[in-house]
Amino acid sequence: MSPSVAPKTAVLHNIATRIRIDSVRSTTAAGSGHPSTCCSAADITAVLFFGEMRYDPQDPHRVDNDRFILSKGHAAPLLYAAWAEVGIVSREATLTLRQLDSDLEGHPTPRLPWVDLATGSLGQGLPAAVGSALNARRIGSDYRTYVLLGDGEMAEGSVWEAAQSGQFHQLDSLCAIVDVNGFGQSRPTQFAHDVETIAARWNAFGWHAVIVDGHDVEAVQRAFADARATSGRPTVLVARTLKGKGISLMEDKPSWHGKSLKAGEEEDTAIAELEAQLVPEHGAGRPAIPAPSGRVDRPDPTGPKAMDAPGYALGDLVATREAFGTALARLGAADARVVVLDADVKNSTFSDRFEKAFPDRFYQAFIAEQVMVGMAMGLAGRGAIPFATTFAAFLTRAADFIRMAGVSHLHVKFAGSHCGVSIGEDGPSQMALEDLSLFRAVPGCAVLYPCDAVSAERLVAAASAHDGMAYLRTSRPKTPVIYGPEETFPIGGSKVLRHSATDAITIVTAGVTVFEALQAAETLAGDGIAVRVIDLYSVKPVDEPTLHRAGTETGLIVTVEDHYAAGGIGDAVCEAVSPHGVRVVRVAVPGVPRSGTPEELLDLNGLSARALAATVRRLVSAR
Amino acid sequence: MSPSVAPKTAVLHNIATRIRIDSVRSTTAAGSGHPSTCCSAADITAVLFFGEMRYDPQDPHRVDNDRFILSKGHAAPLLYAAWAEVGIVSREATLTLRQLDSDLEGHPTPRLPWVDLATGSLGQGLPAAVGSALNARRIGSDYRTYVLLGDGEMAEGSVWEAAQSGQFHQLDSLCAIVDVNGFGQSRPTQFAHDVETIAARWNAFGWHAVIVDGHDVEAVQRAFADARATSGRPTVLVARTLKGKGISLMEDKPSWHGKSLKAGEEEDTAIAELEAQLVPEHGAGRPAIPAPSGRVDRPDPTGPKAMDAPGYALGDLVATREAFGTALARLGAADARVVVLDADVKNSTFSDRFEKAFPDRFYQAFIAEQVMVGMAMGLAGRGAIPFATTFAAFLTRAADFIRMAGVSHLHVKFAGSHCGVSIGEDGPSQMALEDLSLFRAVPGCAVLYPCDAVSAERLVAAASAHDGMAYLRTSRPKTPVIYGPEETFPIGGSKVLRHSATDAITIVTAGVTVFEALQAAETLAGDGIAVRVIDLYSVKPVDEPTLHRAGTETGLIVTVEDHYAAGGIGDAVCEAVSPHGVRVVRVAVPGVPRSGTPEELLDLNGLSARALAATVRRLVSAR
Repeated sequence: MSPSVAPKTAVLHNIATRIRIDSVRSTTAAGSGHPSTCCSAADITAVLFFGEMRYDPQDPHRVDNDRFILSKGHAAPLLYAAWAEVGIVSREATLTLRQLDSDLEGHPTPRLPWVDLATGSLGQGLPAAVGSALNARRIGSDYRTYVLLGDGEMAEGSVWEAAQSGQFHQLDSLCAIVDVNGFGQSRPTQFAHDVETIAARWNAFGWHAVIVDGHDVEAVQRAFADARATSGRPTVLVARTLKGKGISLMEDKPSWHGKSLKAGEEEDTAIAELEAQLVPEHGAGRPAIPAPSGRVDRPDPTGPKAMDAPGYALGDLVATREAFGTALARLGAADARVVVLDADVKNSTFSDRFEKAFPDRFYQAFIAEQVMVGMAMGLAGRGAIPFATTFAAFLTRAADFIRMAGVSHLHVKFAGSHCGVSIGEDGPSQMALEDLSLFRAVPGCAVLYPCDAVSAERLVAAASAHDGMAYLRTSRPKTPVIYGPEETFPIGGSKVLRHSATDAITIVTAGVTVFEALQAAETLAGDGIAVRVIDLYSVKPVDEPTLHRAGTETGLIVTVEDHYAAGGIGDAVCEAVSPHGVRVVRVAVPGVPRSGTPEELLDLNGLSARALAATVRRLVSAR
Repeated sequence: MSPSVAPKTAVLHNIATRIRIDSVRSTTAAGSGHPSTCCSAADITAVLFFGEMRYDPQDPHRVDNDRFILSKGHAAPLLYAAWAEVGIVSREATLTLRQLDSDLEGHPTPRLPWVDLATGSLGQGLPAAVGSALNARRIGSDYRTYVLLGDGEMAEGSVWEAAQSGQFHQLDSLCAIVDVNGFGQSRPTQFAHDVETIAARWNAFGWHAVIVDGHDVEAVQRAFADARATSGRPTVLVARTLKGKGISLMEDKPSWHGKSLKAGEEEDTAIAELEAQLVPEHGAGRPAIPAPSGRVDRPDPTGPKAMDAPGYALGDLVATREAFGTALARLGAADARVVVLDADVKNSTFSDRFEKAFPDRFYQAFIAEQVMVGMAMGLAGRGAIPFATTFAAFLTRAADFIRMAGVSHLHVKFAGSHCGVSIGEDGPSQMALEDLSLFRAVPGCAVLYPCDAVSAERLVAAASAHDGMAYLRTSRPKTPVIYGPEETFPIGGSKVLRHSATDAITIVTAGVTVFEALQAAETLAGDGIAVRVIDLYSVKPVDEPTLHRAGTETGLIVTVEDHYAAGGIGDAVCEAVSPHGVRVVRVAVPGVPRSGTPEELLDLNGLSARALAATVRRLVSAR
């Protein structure tokens, strides 16, 4: 590079070069990682962190900091190297990459204060960035959100869900950068360096697409300025780059995905080559980092206001999904941090009650569950308490986002309606029969399953207050209110609804089958068989002491669930009591169901009062 | 309509009108369902079934029939009404819609011979249609694949994954129709009737988009002819329609999603209004249905050829993921029905070994797991045996497709590599810790987890031969071969690797932790504690007799898995033995892991030989 280069350009070029050097050094020290993808995005990153983004390097928690999401999470060393340039981490620390006692993991996680959410499952950064940009609008801040994508991950449909959400919500504070280095892991991407075709797609999705040479720091600065000047729609920089840029051994070579350079001659040669690219004259120092504006029109409260007790009378017939909608609107009044997301089923989940009360805190994702959850992750990462709501069956569409929300320890709340065969005629495609399993497999996620309107309302508030993820499972049929308005439902608890000193067996269940179990117990009492019935409204964490005592006292637990046997209530109960050798028999939906009335389907699948009574009789007589 | 209308047009118009009438009648009889969305697509459907599609109405199983996939599955009554017109079902049968003893379910399922796969989870039809079109190429047939989408479901990212796959594979035998009626369930769609914006998106994704009036049967016929004349890329008809078309009460009204007309005056008025739209003159009869061409260049074999025993020696160090790749290539030689799909990680899963041997039967999905699984579903529905392969963690991206493949009883085979913390440095985003749970929750799905190369190879063949879905979990670390080449691994079996008459405890495990368990047992033997060790290579179905016996004889089972505790091996073992009151203690990954070496992470999470020995000592001494 010639000495006639403008000083800021030379300075940024030198920062990018040092980022490349650090990325090589850290991955070689680790013996694994992705230096080639760090090199393609180094110039873009240098521009972003030195002059484009407004943030306070001393305070990662400032709510008005511009945000950066590294969607191509395998380029983590790039991020850590940029931080080293900023002074957020030490240069020595970057050499602890991927070590057990270092928070500089193989892919970024929120163990690091500047990371709002874990990345590494591709295609999730842009959906979360949409949530971050919505959050700026929510709190009345002018912070901007930047997200760096790989070109390979544009194949993920979730990227296009996010693109259309960005368009729909007119998020001009959102700026994506696609690092078009042309290579995926195992082969060239579908479009290689055809930036025009890529830009045409983004334009068709309503974005302002700017094609730019991703190694020309002046051009990249101009493109960011163009983005900042664009209103009413988000901008994407389609940046043509070379994988491994700056290192002749790997530059634009297909075989260097996910490989570190060998320590010794290979590393030394690459470092020497990069160091030779540093511009000595005018290339010293670092540009000032612009401060955030300080504008936050609607700062978040620190906690919820007190809520009145639920307003139901014993015996009222209310579906838990409807009670959920009512409770959500009440919670919204008590806590301004609560926001709700819908995937075009708000009139079935009853989340429309929240929308009616708080239209500005209700986000429509249309039929795109991945971006719905991704938006919720982005909002949760910035202080909101989002409830993502749809049919429970369709939350499985976002299973990988749910998994990553768990990895990120994000306080996203999920509510799934229409669980189980009790939805009836719509048939198996609409029935959630694996949702308890899905959410139980997320560390720290509370799994709540109310049977009546009072417990539903109490558990909505409990889910919101829970320090972590929470899932609330609601049902379609109307069920009678059995709990008084003052009853409380702590997470991790259960309710023993029926018990005696002579109980021969315990039924543990939740949701609509609570009523089938109670009715079966009534029938069996007439036959002289006393049955304990437990409402396991908190499927996770589970009330181990109560279950253990019931198992010990009655000798046999039957778990009953409108769900498949794997991973649900039966599993939760076994996890609690099998270490003690308690007998547990599961009653669950035995195979793929079909259409029919709710009553017919409960009976056909062994979950009706009649079927449960028969099962208990058989078990008791066999002892 | 005037009598001057050309006869075929009048005939098709009358068929469409009768389809509307039937859709109203069947949904009113059921008391639920979606007549309004049937009415918007009735004209398109009439054209498709009478003149456009080539098929033998007597034989749903002809491999060269053109295929129709109703992606907007909630319009099931439309499909059943079309069949009634064709004579595939009786008109009376359509009135059994949604009843328990009828196969005409709320959303179509493969209980019906003309349905290859269940729909009803939106956005899955087009990915499957891509698979169906690839299948035509695979068997050398000129059959065409048609798929009807709703406009609302275009919000699903999976639709755009499928669009790019259709472009990449240049599938000119594929024709999608988007029924742009402008309404979702709860509100207008993002683009309402803006067909130009919708068409621009499809064009940007490389399709030939044709805007058409979806109620003009002549225009629809011309558009289909245009599609047939298009080569090198798929075609989409962007059809402007009115929801509820033909019934003034619901036509183009937002409030009629998913509502049937009330029996009595409401239904009668609608039927009378539709009947008045029938054209008496020249409008009788039905156009002839064109026969399929009969061309099938490469018909499928009826079964696999015999395979030689695996070629490994005891003690060879081979990762199960690598043995999987080798086995897949060998299986490909034995069975021409086997095809493989990859999401740009073929050099990590070793599926590239199959690609090298059989490039024409290897389909690249790029980083788009939903369409990868959707394509596999479409291929499986037409006779292929597809293996969908990626990192196990990223199969969760396709969880809803996996769920629906289960509902459809499709013989899709899944292989997930890089399971558990034993992948090491890449960190939690890349670690599958819930995949056993995901697949165990699918009825009929075999869940297989080999620990060495011989069992991996045998289980690949077993998965292929299994009558249903199967999942194979493979690991990243190299492990020693412990089974001889003649050892067999029936699905539902297990291997007792170590046992004695004095075993104090049983460890049940699979995969890499088999070796940790064996080493722990060796250590404990030195302390005088005899430990039984079982390799549970078949996690589902599970070997209940062997587990029961081990539990009874040793009094305590410890399950060990490189997976979270929920839904995995611990759950499988409890489901089998908890009815007998066997004590079961679980050792599993206790929370979100982090980066580190495989050895460090196994130890940190309690799964190393050292940690297992300590756990067993503690349990035995506490008895």
